[in-house]
Amino acid sequence: MEKPEHHIFVCASFRADGDAKGVCNKKGAVSLLPYIENEIIDRGLDAQITSTGCMKACDHGPVMVIYPAGLWYGGVESEDAVDEILDALEDGEAAESYAL
Amino acid sequence: MEKPEHHIFVCASFRADGDAKGVCNKKGAVSLLPYIENEIIDRGLDAQITSTGCMKACDHGPVMVIYPAGLWYGGVESEDAVDEILDALEDGEAAESYAL
Repeated sequence: MEKPEHHIFVCASFRADGDAKGVCNKKGAVSLLPYIENEIIDRGLDAQITSTGCMKACDHGPVMVIYPAGLWYGGVESEDAVDEILDALEDGEAAESYAL
Repeated sequence: MEKPEHHIFVCASFRADGDAKGVCNKKGAVSLLPYIENEIIDRGLDAQITSTGCMKACDHGPVMVIYPAGLWYGGVESEDAVDEILDALEDGEAAESYAL
């Protein structure tokens, strides 16, 4: 099986029962998913995006985590934030403004 | 923010709209979550478990991915499977029977 070089997890705050009630969800994390998907394609990144249930960092939501680098980001509420984070990823760095 | 040594992602196949219709979900992935949580505590692992939407490996579901090690597992349908995977994790190895 082909595995992605970067695996981007975006909290969408779904609970195990399928409810979507959490902080990240309310702050619009889900609406950024298509933008992130498009950016991955436009930039030609070998990256997979996966929405998640609560990542237990609600105070910092919306939360995004990138592995295997282990980069945790908070306050990812805008396309500009996504751009900054992906720019840094391409440079092999952390995007300091959003780093947790 | 304290980050976990191991981050265990379990596909629960929730879609962005909150529906839970996928392969991993139907095969009972969600019902294993409490068992995995208990095992993490019992073993004293520095690990966080997060449920996810589709990880695009449906043919192999239920799917589990562990980062930063980047271990992808399929067919994780039983407590025995979880035990084998966590045993291997504690030994710093991959559980070959379930590795993708």
